[in-house]
Amino acid sequence: MKTRDRILHMSLRMFNEQGERTVTTNHIAAALNMSPGNLYYYFKNKEAIIFELFCQYETRTRTFLHAGPDQQLTWSDILCYFQEIARNIWDYRFLHRDLEQLLAHNPQLLAQYRHFAQDVMSAGRHIMQRMNSSGLLIANDEELDALIINTWVIATGWAPFLHATAVFGPLGTELTQAMIHRGIRQILFLLKPYLSQDALNVLPELLHLYTEAH
Amino acid sequence: MKTRDRILHMSLRMFNEQGERTVTTNHIAAALNMSPGNLYYYFKNKEAIIFELFCQYETRTRTFLHAGPDQQLTWSDILCYFQEIARNIWDYRFLHRDLEQLLAHNPQLLAQYRHFAQDVMSAGRHIMQRMNSSGLLIANDEELDALIINTWVIATGWAPFLHATAVFGPLGTELTQAMIHRGIRQILFLLKPYLSQDALNVLPELLHLYTEAH
Repeated sequence: MKTRDRILHMSLRMFNEQGERTVTTNHIAAALNMSPGNLYYYFKNKEAIIFELFCQYETRTRTFLHAGPDQQLTWSDILCYFQEIARNIWDYRFLHRDLEQLLAHNPQLLAQYRHFAQDVMSAGRHIMQRMNSSGLLIANDEELDALIINTWVIATGWAPFLHATAVFGPLGTELTQAMIHRGIRQILFLLKPYLSQDALNVLPELLHLYTEAH
Repeated sequence: MKTRDRILHMSLRMFNEQGERTVTTNHIAAALNMSPGNLYYYFKNKEAIIFELFCQYETRTRTFLHAGPDQQLTWSDILCYFQEIARNIWDYRFLHRDLEQLLAHNPQLLAQYRHFAQDVMSAGRHIMQRMNSSGLLIANDEELDALIINTWVIATGWAPFLHATAVFGPLGTELTQAMIHRGIRQILFLLKPYLSQDALNVLPELLHLYTEAH
């Protein structure tokens, strides 16, 4: 692995496990047996590392949102979307947990994030519309507008919710995969009232995936 | 007004208008033509002021959640609940906007907030159950469980969502009442699929209240 990628890989791991706030570039360099000067050759500060990790996350998210089939959507396509959402939130969980503070201290990230948010909601709205025309979902335009925004707020607000309220048990800096799955389950319940009978028939299978602790 | 109340009143106003982060106890004292020493006689630091403001917010929220009628709920009771939620979020909007950072720096507030969150979700769950038995809502236990959590995440995640994404236009430190009403509208759309026909008939009136900019 190239040095630049090794730095990103270790940073992501340490941010996820220890929380972004407690990890400094010196900690990252030490974990890689590297001098801080060598790390600064690749990234001028921690914000630059965070920005690059966000770009990775953004690319992955955009890829799966636009990779779906052109023809009618089936329930297994929906299952894939949910798996990708859960995997992306898990792999970049420090972004979700500390977003507010990250954005407050990083104007470049804030600008990038706002574009990203608009695009993802628009792509998500498009997927829901295709679920509609594929007979998986039955909702009018106004309901779809409300649905995509609520889905976004639940997906991005889930990690802060877990930390602020501790309703699913007290937690340290690390989220568990079971806790993220609990959030996916909440999104499935958002969609549930709008699912067609065909989709409702296979919903229990999907709910089951996100109910057990993995 | 007593000096202690004047300090709280001015702090709330300045936090709401300028954002908690940019307001110091020196700014608050200056706005009240008071020496910083005099302010410290009442509150030992800014965290103590914030904690007291949170307690006011908590008392108001608990009061309206438990003040409802004992008998069957009607649609106008529901209307009152929504008006109180919107008013409380508006009056204490700095708490909603900056919650994550406030909790991170104030362990006493975090402990208090967690109790509050548990109690409000439990009271909210109880109100939804009563809507159910009053024929306004039709949902099973599992759906009610998901509904109250989604309602909480949308209500508390709305201000951070507006700031992070700027989807309803860029904004400075100040939220507008119209933006908070937009969040109430999102919560009404959460409930909509579960409303009984009687409740659905009067929903447009309530949606209208939270659709126009006020």
